[in-house]
Amino acid sequence: MSAFPTALSAAADRVEARLQVEIATLPPSMVRDAMAYAARGGKKLRGFLVLESARLHGIGPEHAIASAAAIEAIHAYSLVHDDLPAMDDDDLRRGQPTVHVKWDDATAILTGDALQTLAFGLLARDDAAPTDAGRLALLVSLAHASGGAGMVLGQALDIAAESAASPLDLDAITELQRGKTGALIEWSACAGARMAGADTAPLAAYAQALGLAFQIADDLLDIEGDAALAGKRLQKDMAAGKATFVSLLGVDGAKARARQLVAHAQDALAPYGSQADILRDAAQFVIARKA
Amino acid sequence: MSAFPTALSAAADRVEARLQVEIATLPPSMVRDAMAYAARGGKKLRGFLVLESARLHGIGPEHAIASAAAIEAIHAYSLVHDDLPAMDDDDLRRGQPTVHVKWDDATAILTGDALQTLAFGLLARDDAAPTDAGRLALLVSLAHASGGAGMVLGQALDIAAESAASPLDLDAITELQRGKTGALIEWSACAGARMAGADTAPLAAYAQALGLAFQIADDLLDIEGDAALAGKRLQKDMAAGKATFVSLLGVDGAKARARQLVAHAQDALAPYGSQADILRDAAQFVIARKA
Repeated sequence: MSAFPTALSAAADRVEARLQVEIATLPPSMVRDAMAYAARGGKKLRGFLVLESARLHGIGPEHAIASAAAIEAIHAYSLVHDDLPAMDDDDLRRGQPTVHVKWDDATAILTGDALQTLAFGLLARDDAAPTDAGRLALLVSLAHASGGAGMVLGQALDIAAESAASPLDLDAITELQRGKTGALIEWSACAGARMAGADTAPLAAYAQALGLAFQIADDLLDIEGDAALAGKRLQKDMAAGKATFVSLLGVDGAKARARQLVAHAQDALAPYGSQADILRDAAQFVIARKA
Repeated sequence: MSAFPTALSAAADRVEARLQVEIATLPPSMVRDAMAYAARGGKKLRGFLVLESARLHGIGPEHAIASAAAIEAIHAYSLVHDDLPAMDDDDLRRGQPTVHVKWDDATAILTGDALQTLAFGLLARDDAAPTDAGRLALLVSLAHASGGAGMVLGQALDIAAESAASPLDLDAITELQRGKTGALIEWSACAGARMAGADTAPLAAYAQALGLAFQIADDLLDIEGDAALAGKRLQKDMAAGKATFVSLLGVDGAKARARQLVAHAQDALAPYGSQADILRDAAQFVIARKA
């Protein structure tokens, strides 16, 4: 029996509570309401990774929770903007109407903007990392992971691919994924090592394999999943004729690749011994998830 | 003969160069091109204020330039997003087509997002402030000034005002302006004091008066200005029936109020003596400008 689902759910509650407290410090406005709405729900896998990575380096949640909340604020901002009609045009997210559907496009743009700002503000808090040097290391690396060299770059490549003459090949899809979802997962997994000034290499290797496995699982869910469980519309990529890991490797090939990646992610944690068992479980669950 | 125009122009060149160097470190993409485009031109008044404020506290540009570049990246991001069709829908900015006109809406959303990320990343650089504590103080205060308690809040109030039953009164317009343009101007003017751990009160008082005078001058330019010099469309507020300082005070009343505010701003600098003469000149120029 794995301890991961319980640990994830406990971390999710804790991270969301910290995030909502931070949002509640803002003056009342439609944007504040929409920020609270957009921050609600979801798996909070990134926040969990931050807390677990901190624990592996002897740092308790009271010195890491603001960083876990920060990465979830970045993730929430990216979803609010990605869902806009000018981007992916999604009307359903986490089983609820997206922000631009419930409010309007202008509010969604401002809500994403203010969630990003909130994320960086959180990194300067006392409960983001034990030291000033740790906070600044998290800041530099999050700016790199989430901006024009990371997540936003992945998103830009995705948009460019839509108007490209031919579908992307495996290398291009892998690069795109590394920016779009991989960079934030890697930042999260490495956060504890950065707080402690320790080597980030083992956790980076873990996260790179995990991020790729996560994306392949997402592509498989898009084909085989249950839209009600997923809380969003499925088969959009297939309908749009977009190249995915499944379209390039086939369903069986994609599943085999995901299993390889999980084994690779688990092996990368060797330096942490049994202390990292819950992160090993997390990798297993990522490819077994139904939503 | 005032030294201000020359000092502003020298600061603008220096700040823009630092910003473009930072943008050039990103991997090539459409978004990187659009970021460089959006960061080009403009008065760079906010960056100038950061450098002047640092100088007043004995901090040279080599220890403050990244913070000056950061506030201009925030300003540029806000313009790119404000100009979107879902927001103010402007097609001309600084005499050039806006980002969503030259590229498209999705690229403009991502470009604004990545400029904001870049701004926060800049604050962690060695040339942002002399100490780690100074960098973190700038980070906390910039998150407050630019997010859901500052600039974004002002923007949200502006949008809410458009659908309100009656036009805003003077208090409401003043509050809106304080967020929309005042918060960033105040952050810029206080930056040097924050880097040095000094009292921010005199510079905050200066900046609050300056910011309000700046907005009144903007409203006057919207009525009396030359669109070719301004590099953007004018009389949009009047056409939209929006309340402005000019519609509430009249042209003469607005001019008198701006002169009062400039005197107030200059008086607030008393603790800095003649060292602050260039900031006094800056206040005078803000209401005399033609663009």
